[in-house]
Amino acid sequence: MTTNEASRPSRRGPYAKSTERRQAILVAAHAVFAAHGYRGGSLQDVADHVGMSQTSLLHYFPSKSDLLLAVLNWRDSITGDGTIPPDPEETLVDAVIRQARFNEEIPGVIELYTVLCAESVTDAHPGREYFTERFELLRRSYARRFRQLAEEGRLRPGVKPEAAAASLIALWDGIQTQWLLSPESVDMAGCLRGYLELVVLPE
Amino acid sequence: MTTNEASRPSRRGPYAKSTERRQAILVAAHAVFAAHGYRGGSLQDVADHVGMSQTSLLHYFPSKSDLLLAVLNWRDSITGDGTIPPDPEETLVDAVIRQARFNEEIPGVIELYTVLCAESVTDAHPGREYFTERFELLRRSYARRFRQLAEEGRLRPGVKPEAAAASLIALWDGIQTQWLLSPESVDMAGCLRGYLELVVLPE
Repeated sequence: MTTNEASRPSRRGPYAKSTERRQAILVAAHAVFAAHGYRGGSLQDVADHVGMSQTSLLHYFPSKSDLLLAVLNWRDSITGDGTIPPDPEETLVDAVIRQARFNEEIPGVIELYTVLCAESVTDAHPGREYFTERFELLRRSYARRFRQLAEEGRLRPGVKPEAAAASLIALWDGIQTQWLLSPESVDMAGCLRGYLELVVLPE
Repeated sequence: MTTNEASRPSRRGPYAKSTERRQAILVAAHAVFAAHGYRGGSLQDVADHVGMSQTSLLHYFPSKSDLLLAVLNWRDSITGDGTIPPDPEETLVDAVIRQARFNEEIPGVIELYTVLCAESVTDAHPGREYFTERFELLRRSYARRFRQLAEEGRLRPGVKPEAAAASLIALWDGIQTQWLLSPESVDMAGCLRGYLELVVLPE
């Protein structure tokens, strides 16, 4: 954007302009937090990315923790909240593999999730409540799916739906970290499929 | 330590004294990195913890990244490198459960591992090589154990030793994160046992 354009009022009015700036800040904050973590990434870095002053940035997001939560919620609006929406045409196994393959296309988003999630266990981290609630939601949602499979006689005898839910989520998070470090030697979708084939009996 | 004691030469000589100081720095750095991550924890915080100046601290560890690697290696010397030493008297399942129960007693050490491991996927993080190599070592070591079980006819047919190794490590890391956030609602050892009972057939 040139100085001339900046001084000319936008034809779409101040509201559209403000939404656009907000969006640009979220994109920049996503990149900065993915590259350095929440604690390592600074508001100044984010402001530099979008070419505005830190003071202007704080007009959109009053604090760094507000910005973090906005990035996390924005991420959910793109990739979903992590639960797999029930689709009568798609099995749980297919839905998980489809999501895992999609994730392989967006390493930056996975990196952000991995770093912020782990950071959230540290003292007074503003993302702690978000991640704690997210895991509770995910465990409940997957446990419901596994209970459904159990009712259809398709959960391997001895497998508890709640434990399978926590384990699937854990396996997914853990294999993402290994994949981020060594993408060539880790088969994310293959590991998830392997686990689901152990717990879910064929139709 | 009082000023009087500090000015009196140690009876054990300067070498013992230096080892002691080095050890105190490692303990402090472990606590600081576990609480704030590597990027969020500062050398000044570590120096404050041990009551020395940052300049004196840099005499023992020339840089923050040197200190990080020393902490990681020191952690390994306490908790092991993550592999399970073969013991003819103990099954793989028992060894994993024993280690998981031990980890429940040392949440600070698990927090450090979780945070630094995830942080290591970010740009130019000094721990990246350490964690990449650690995962490769762990995958090789567990794959060897699963191959052994396969030779004894005790690996469930269809399970690949390499995939089971990567999955067990991933599950363990992921469930640790969930446990750090909600210790009351996550059964780490139970999830690991559940997975191993799926892949390892009873004797």
